[in-house]
Amino acid sequence: MPWIRIIGRHLPMQCEKHFSLPFLLHLVYLEPNANQTERGIIMAKYTLMKTEGRAKRAQFETVHGTIQTPVFMNVGTIGAIKGAVSTQDLYDIGTQVELSNTYHLHVRPGDKVVKQLGGLHKFMNWERPILTDSGGFQVFSLAKLRKIKEEGVHFQSHIDGHKIFMGPEESMQIQSNLGSTIAMAFDECPSSVADRDYVQKSVERTTRWLARCKTEMARLNSLPDTINKEQLLFGINQGAVYEDIRIEHAREIAKMDLDGYAVGGLAVGETHEEMYRILDAVVPYLPQDKPTYLMGVGTPANILEGVERGIDFFDCVYPSRNGRHGHVYTNHGKMNMFNAKYELDTRPIEEGCGCPACRHYSRAYIRHLLKAKEMLGMRLCVLHNLYFYNHMMEEIRDALDEGRFADYKKMRLEGFAAGEQK
Amino acid sequence: MPWIRIIGRHLPMQCEKHFSLPFLLHLVYLEPNANQTERGIIMAKYTLMKTEGRAKRAQFETVHGTIQTPVFMNVGTIGAIKGAVSTQDLYDIGTQVELSNTYHLHVRPGDKVVKQLGGLHKFMNWERPILTDSGGFQVFSLAKLRKIKEEGVHFQSHIDGHKIFMGPEESMQIQSNLGSTIAMAFDECPSSVADRDYVQKSVERTTRWLARCKTEMARLNSLPDTINKEQLLFGINQGAVYEDIRIEHAREIAKMDLDGYAVGGLAVGETHEEMYRILDAVVPYLPQDKPTYLMGVGTPANILEGVERGIDFFDCVYPSRNGRHGHVYTNHGKMNMFNAKYELDTRPIEEGCGCPACRHYSRAYIRHLLKAKEMLGMRLCVLHNLYFYNHMMEEIRDALDEGRFADYKKMRLEGFAAGEQK
Repeated sequence: MPWIRIIGRHLPMQCEKHFSLPFLLHLVYLEPNANQTERGIIMAKYTLMKTEGRAKRAQFETVHGTIQTPVFMNVGTIGAIKGAVSTQDLYDIGTQVELSNTYHLHVRPGDKVVKQLGGLHKFMNWERPILTDSGGFQVFSLAKLRKIKEEGVHFQSHIDGHKIFMGPEESMQIQSNLGSTIAMAFDECPSSVADRDYVQKSVERTTRWLARCKTEMARLNSLPDTINKEQLLFGINQGAVYEDIRIEHAREIAKMDLDGYAVGGLAVGETHEEMYRILDAVVPYLPQDKPTYLMGVGTPANILEGVERGIDFFDCVYPSRNGRHGHVYTNHGKMNMFNAKYELDTRPIEEGCGCPACRHYSRAYIRHLLKAKEMLGMRLCVLHNLYFYNHMMEEIRDALDEGRFADYKKMRLEGFAAGEQK
Repeated sequence: MPWIRIIGRHLPMQCEKHFSLPFLLHLVYLEPNANQTERGIIMAKYTLMKTEGRAKRAQFETVHGTIQTPVFMNVGTIGAIKGAVSTQDLYDIGTQVELSNTYHLHVRPGDKVVKQLGGLHKFMNWERPILTDSGGFQVFSLAKLRKIKEEGVHFQSHIDGHKIFMGPEESMQIQSNLGSTIAMAFDECPSSVADRDYVQKSVERTTRWLARCKTEMARLNSLPDTINKEQLLFGINQGAVYEDIRIEHAREIAKMDLDGYAVGGLAVGETHEEMYRILDAVVPYLPQDKPTYLMGVGTPANILEGVERGIDFFDCVYPSRNGRHGHVYTNHGKMNMFNAKYELDTRPIEEGCGCPACRHYSRAYIRHLLKAKEMLGMRLCVLHNLYFYNHMMEEIRDALDEGRFADYKKMRLEGFAAGEQK
């Protein structure tokens, strides 16, 4: 019975955290055909557990375990979290989903190499869900001399300038080789200052590309040697800051019955207020019975605002990038660990924090490491920041569970605004 | 009763590994006055447990716990092990003693800062023994424009060129501020190609400096605000490659009844054969009832040869430096993890190795990290190498305990010579 095989495969690690025994029995005995594809294998199942206003508290079951949302995905661009953080560390700091970049992995070590090694999960030794972006964003932000055509994009590698072609089919093929849990559709992310006419045409092409992504993924998932035959596909809403284009696009892609829907093309230069305005406008038009992902966002405050507007998934390089520069998050806003006032400060970054840095090391020691350019300083700050984000998401979920998210959000924002603790 | 206090202080962490209950009772009840100073505090106690030829298997009790020898000390120059390795990691990989550099810590963050923070143990959050070098070696190898006088050395910082004076008293004061378990005497380390006349005069001055170190440490240890009033002093034998100067110097310093004796000025450019010849000549003239430390040595083979010649303590930057360059130690010699042949190799660096890298990650993944310049690659290789050294020392101790060190050494050297495993 394929269900038992699938559940059994993940049971040793995932059962305690994600499955209760009654839930498992429910799956196996009571709904034997629910969420089964024609291949008899469990598909993703999104269960909305609670709402507060537009905020959603849900869980999303995947072949690599269940994701409790709202969730922050920890970014490991080329299959490693920058700052000497490993997947073992990710388990320790409560990471649910790891995010990797398709374009970077295609360039190095190569998605075919990763496939030969059994896929990204085996390569990184990470058993929980992985989301891969489509490469589209990197093609538009990093590549040299790109040329967009109906079939896809011709561009030059940002590393050595060699010519690459990527279209919807290629992006799906690469992500299939990586074997991620969730693949993102290949889209164009137009500039936030692009004119209305350009955005309109771009979004229409993105819709056509999405249909091709869906067809190609279905084909890839049915091949005998595909690593993850249950790979999921999220579509991406675009439309820059034009609410009507956004809404029309949301309506179009919602018809395609995808596994989840992302809001792309935000956090690319527009103000926070513009971002919130677009979310207010478009999220209600995305399917409520599917996960909603706000791409590349953001600060702790952005996340709280995003949750309030119905977002389930977030990702951002801020916590790791800031950590590498000695900027750490606390309940009272960010701290610059290079600051001279920490020279003799024996307290942890944040009193009471359960991260590996705060449990063992002082501000004075971390400042010394950073000033002496010892890698350990970066590692400790990145671990702290990722833990801070993961822990905040846990608190957000608890608050939603208990119907007090509005209060929690207010308390959090006031804390951040209070500024660095003395 | 001060003894019980002292033992009690370290009991929770050290007792299981280092003390047996009968041994503790023996200390407390049967020899109540042994190893007590006039301040009623336990002093270092070196117990020779077994010999095999000239090889020694011993334990060395200190105020920060007992060291089982032969031991390899893991180098954390400025209070951190390079390669994003923390003291928590050191516990995990079986490190007994951490070694830090006096000169580097004097320059940054400053030994007075470290003292205000409660000493190096608190600063790094490391409860086991720490050995600090005297700064002498760095003064002679790193400093600009140095001028050696009877009172000490005037030189310029290798970082910003500012003028520093360091003599025996200054070195002892800095090490006292750091509060290390074992302080090293301030000596001159003459070039291995220095002429006989220079070496003779230098060694005589080093002897005079040693007497001043001893006096100054006694004074510092008796001050009320000294962090570690039980700080130990090891003297350093010098004499370059002149056996008679070495032996004469060993005889002189042996009279001073120090806590341990080091062989310095080796592994500075002479051949391995010369180093072994000097060890053969001089170690028999150092006290057998005190620990013997071969400074800055070396390769796994050097260590095996050193143990055979009666060495207890070793330290070297090789495992961490090589690790940062992707060179890892195995039972079959070193491997260069950048090598293309590891691209698709799903095996760990070494099959059966219990280090954090080998337990979780493949050669293919580590190679990818190194090539992509991800810090995690360095961290994993450094962890592997330090574990390799610590684990080899454990095997050496087991072999000595069981009277089979000669066989173990032969087996090990043959393994290294066999070359990289396929």
